[in-house]
Amino acid sequence: VSTIHVIGAAGFAGAQLAALVNDHPYFELGQITSRTEAGKYLVDVTPEYRVGRQLTELDLGAIASDDFAAVCYPHAEAVAVVAPLIDSGVRVVDVSADHRLRDPAAYPVHYDFEHPRPDLLQMAVYGLPELYRDAIVDAQLVANPGCYPETALLGLLPICRDISEVVIDAKSGVSGAGRTPSSVVHYSNVTDSIWPYKVFAHRHQPEIAQELGQDLIFTPHLLPVDRGLMCSSYARVDREAIPDQATLDARYSDFYEDHPFVEPVVSPPTMRAVQRTNFAQVCPLLSPDGERVAVFSVLDNLMKGAAGQALQNFNLMAGRPETEGLL
Amino acid sequence: VSTIHVIGAAGFAGAQLAALVNDHPYFELGQITSRTEAGKYLVDVTPEYRVGRQLTELDLGAIASDDFAAVCYPHAEAVAVVAPLIDSGVRVVDVSADHRLRDPAAYPVHYDFEHPRPDLLQMAVYGLPELYRDAIVDAQLVANPGCYPETALLGLLPICRDISEVVIDAKSGVSGAGRTPSSVVHYSNVTDSIWPYKVFAHRHQPEIAQELGQDLIFTPHLLPVDRGLMCSSYARVDREAIPDQATLDARYSDFYEDHPFVEPVVSPPTMRAVQRTNFAQVCPLLSPDGERVAVFSVLDNLMKGAAGQALQNFNLMAGRPETEGLL
Amino acid sequence: VSTIHVIGAAGFAGAQLAALVNDHPYFELGQITSRTEAGKYLVDVTPEYRVGRQLTELDLGAIASDDFAAVCYPHAEAVAVVAPLIDSGVRVVDVSADHRLRDPAAYPVHYDFEHPRPDLLQMAVYGLPELYRDAIVDAQLVANPGCYPETALLGLLPICRDISEVVIDAKSGVSGAGRTPSSVVHYSNVTDSIWPYKVFAHRHQPEIAQELGQDLIFTPHLLPVDRGLMCSSYARVDREAIPDQATLDARYSDFYEDHPFVEPVVSPPTMRAVQRTNFAQVCPLLSPDGERVAVFSVLDNLMKGAAGQALQNFNLMAGRPETEGLL
Amino acid sequence: VSTIHVIGAAGFAGAQLAALVNDHPYFELGQITSRTEAGKYLVDVTPEYRVGRQLTELDLGAIASDDFAAVCYPHAEAVAVVAPLIDSGVRVVDVSADHRLRDPAAYPVHYDFEHPRPDLLQMAVYGLPELYRDAIVDAQLVANPGCYPETALLGLLPICRDISEVVIDAKSGVSGAGRTPSSVVHYSNVTDSIWPYKVFAHRHQPEIAQELGQDLIFTPHLLPVDRGLMCSSYARVDREAIPDQATLDARYSDFYEDHPFVEPVVSPPTMRAVQRTNFAQVCPLLSPDGERVAVFSVLDNLMKGAAGQALQNFNLMAGRPETEGLL
Repeated sequence: VSTIHVIGAAGFAGAQLAALVNDHPYFELGQITSRTEAGKYLVDVTPEYRVGRQLTELDLGAIASDDFAAVCYPHAEAVAVVAPLIDSGVRVVDVSADHRLRDPAAYPVHYDFEHPRPDLLQMAVYGLPELYRDAIVDAQLVANPGCYPETALLGLLPICRDISEVVIDAKSGVSGAGRTPSSVVHYSNVTDSIWPYKVFAHRHQPEIAQELGQDLIFTPHLLPVDRGLMCSSYARVDREAIPDQATLDARYSDFYEDHPFVEPVVSPPTMRAVQRTNFAQVCPLLSPDGERVAVFSVLDNLMKGAAGQALQNFNLMAGRPETEGLL
Repeated sequence: VSTIHVIGAAGFAGAQLAALVNDHPYFELGQITSRTEAGKYLVDVTPEYRVGRQLTELDLGAIASDDFAAVCYPHAEAVAVVAPLIDSGVRVVDVSADHRLRDPAAYPVHYDFEHPRPDLLQMAVYGLPELYRDAIVDAQLVANPGCYPETALLGLLPICRDISEVVIDAKSGVSGAGRTPSSVVHYSNVTDSIWPYKVFAHRHQPEIAQELGQDLIFTPHLLPVDRGLMCSSYARVDREAIPDQATLDARYSDFYEDHPFVEPVVSPPTMRAVQRTNFAQVCPLLSPDGERVAVFSVLDNLMKGAAGQALQNFNLMAGRPETEGLL
Repeated sequence: VSTIHVIGAAGFAGAQLAALVNDHPYFELGQITSRTEAGKYLVDVTPEYRVGRQLTELDLGAIASDDFAAVCYPHAEAVAVVAPLIDSGVRVVDVSADHRLRDPAAYPVHYDFEHPRPDLLQMAVYGLPELYRDAIVDAQLVANPGCYPETALLGLLPICRDISEVVIDAKSGVSGAGRTPSSVVHYSNVTDSIWPYKVFAHRHQPEIAQELGQDLIFTPHLLPVDRGLMCSSYARVDREAIPDQATLDARYSDFYEDHPFVEPVVSPPTMRAVQRTNFAQVCPLLSPDGERVAVFSVLDNLMKGAAGQALQNFNLMAGRPETEGLL
Repeated sequence: VSTIHVIGAAGFAGAQLAALVNDHPYFELGQITSRTEAGKYLVDVTPEYRVGRQLTELDLGAIASDDFAAVCYPHAEAVAVVAPLIDSGVRVVDVSADHRLRDPAAYPVHYDFEHPRPDLLQMAVYGLPELYRDAIVDAQLVANPGCYPETALLGLLPICRDISEVVIDAKSGVSGAGRTPSSVVHYSNVTDSIWPYKVFAHRHQPEIAQELGQDLIFTPHLLPVDRGLMCSSYARVDREAIPDQATLDARYSDFYEDHPFVEPVVSPPTMRAVQRTNFAQVCPLLSPDGERVAVFSVLDNLMKGAAGQALQNFNLMAGRPETEGLL
């Protein structure tokens, strides 16, 4: 048995992760910390998870070097906790954005802070098992993907070398915006509407570009949905490489053959099919003239897009079955 | 032409009222003030109303004694503005709760403050035209009803002397909670759920009891709805006074005969039928054994339950047709 | 290992039950039948359950006498399948209403058909383990409760002998109306609204009365919610029997002490806390004057209100742990 | 005063149009017909419109040649009514798709029927006043645009000659699917989800292409929203023609200068701002590198996307102010 500490467990992703670890047959839930809710029971913060454990202040000294830790802090704040953990030998999944971009110069540009530990960016493995599973197994520091990049990449990776003119129109549930109240997440502003935001300016764009290996247009929209994320991705396709729908389908079935959480489907998926699961569904469709592809990818932003993905990574890091505690 | 100033115009009720006055054929929109949003254009705060006027700080001195004013401040804060307005001769509709209860002693108990001007409580007319229309016409200070009391009272007034054991189960849209962000109005907490709150402890209970003339059980629930309020009211009924459904129906059609905004209906209404209108619908149903009555009443909490009701009162106070600007 | 056949597996309750049985560590999923969708894969009808089994026509002859069967047909149609199953020795949970009422005379009155097998009504055990667990263990025929009665009864049973003047205001998610399209469940008619229906005339009223042992007012409302059911119940309370909140709380904690799926809580619950689980939450509150009680009870109408309840009953009938496959 | 007959007035668009005409200061509401709901009062079918008129069977003979008629039938069925009306001199707005495409050969391909009256396709004016106002004024037959094309075109027309590689990702409220119940519009299938449908195969694609003058990718998505339609459109842009955001903005403000119902805005709009109005909002944004444009356009699918647009066309045809009865 190994212990996973969840640092920042009162937020949506942290609470979901604490619940998953709590029910896991192998892992044991260690500290569940919160800077603002310490003292409360997690079940009172998020009754649906039934985790009767008390949130505490973080006690870094009580984390053993052979423990695991997940850091669910906002960007620019996570690194200050990740750094000492890594330095003391703890294996970490950073759920924040602080170690996703390889280029230190990208942090001032996209995240408004100078990264204090560029060495950690070198060390970090991008936590997408469908791309980097072997490296995750041995990693000390895993940078859990952003929910938008995770969804977009699962949709496009199988064909990323054969497409161009990529446009990703993304639609996210409100839980992706986090638990902090604001007018943006006020029910009366969200319900019965849809809102495109941070057009040409969202921080997940460079993350997608880094892993996709090409530039792209990315536009997020806020949906009147609680949990769920869909990317509708459009691109020109290399007709020689992918001459027909059967070839396109084969690309996806081959690519995801050994990846239990990604389900290629033949009809456009709905969020319903993946909500509250760690599954993603991807549906690639070739246009009748064979010039374009549309790919629809969906997942639950708190599961495969955050906490479930983190647990999948912990499973790999600990040598456990990849799906343990996630089916 | 007369001027109506809307004091506190950035909140949900105030903005709705500013929009109604702005489109009104007789009234002219005066100051639209906000303590937190002064300087912004109202259209940027609530785009749906298309009111291209700038919110300002309140300038009491610029309000003429023959102007009208609506005060849309939170309770305990409104009276500080209402008092000087009344003292200078302005006619006021107070949309807050500060002048709804006649008994000064009720304020410390239910609203946690000592009322500084009990004389205004004596002067205030409860702004429900279906009950006090003549008094409203001549009033200097009108206390606009709370949205829950308005809905409950419209449902029960026609039979209030012939019922007992009254239980009011109320369901409100989120806009009733106001524009200030909080975890209570976070989309993820509201959607796909329902929540009973302030059970046996809501401030609108004594207001309903005052006007209904009897004690009652009142329980509000928060609905995954933007605008709309329904009261499902249950009571024992005096079988001699109301022996059958036809008598019950006649009570309602007689009571509301001259009241253009209340529509008695024979099938249980939905919120849809009244949203974004100043209409209320009421549906009284006698149980098969004739012992009980169930009454369903619905209205839009920002219109007939707040801003529309305020304008209806201004129409009466100014000698205009009661429905002007409200159809 | 035992086999459970799910007869009528394409509806909301049947599909949920098939999914639960499919994932159960002890039971094996037998036939999953549908009269309208035979030939389709269940995963294509309800993708979220990931049950890759094919729906078939019912083959009664292939059901062994030591198998279990759940019948998820509409009322008046279930008995025609339940009867031959019972006659051939199969143990059955009838998810329909066909065996819930003990009095045969109630069927023509409330369900518009003459019950063809009154003997089965004698034999049937009402499938509420919190009331009849011992009888369920030995039953051949279990009548699974209606979702409204289940919710109402769990809320009121601990105090049913000490209350009077019972009013139950119930709010249900749309899945309770079933999978068949109609204008009632059209998104545009449901969203952003609420609708009271079948006032004084809902078929679940006599079922609640039968088990509660007294008459009551029951009014269902349709909510803009997918899954979830809340009863807000109000009653006069015997002050000598229940003099204070502590006594009231003790009633509930005692009553549900050995019942793992019912959670007494001290604050009014939301649907969120129980959706997609087999848990119910109940919150009893005494009025300040001690004269009245308000009880809020919530559950997921497809789980504890239907399929989860059915599986809980099968667990008991098969001598398995009551919670197996349900946590 | 002129009479407008609404043929097919029980559907969502027809009922909305009947309500608009009923409240119009100049037009008079003539026949309101329904093949399935004749005999009912419109207020009972759609209570929110408060139109106390009875739906009838269509009486073609009672329509005078100087009357106006709107035909709100499904495609392939409208032409059978439009044809005799046109032949008898009546001026018609066809709200269906039957006269939107100029090429008769397109009907068998996209709508599965041979158009019986290609002469009407020649005569019909595409009913988008922002493009064809002068022709609409004199038209006998106006083909009201589809809701998706209307939204997409208003977003792209001002720059349609300077863009290429057009991708339109469209999101529609459920009312766009019409009033007929089906599993697609079942609340439980729509809520808390999103669904892309008819990818590369929607009938509105050729209509957009016809008016835009170029090919494009168009993908509709079904939103958990009642009324509202958004197009997020992406394209490469001619950098010489449109070198900067100021030039882009000027294109839109110039194009819509004399068009009262289209509002260019500088921040991405929400559906909220246009729901239940005849306004559209358009927001064009140039990418930082100047290579691409993203345009967000929103409108209410039953107003500017159907009934409001029809009335706007009737206003023009009758020589009335374009905005009459629509503000």
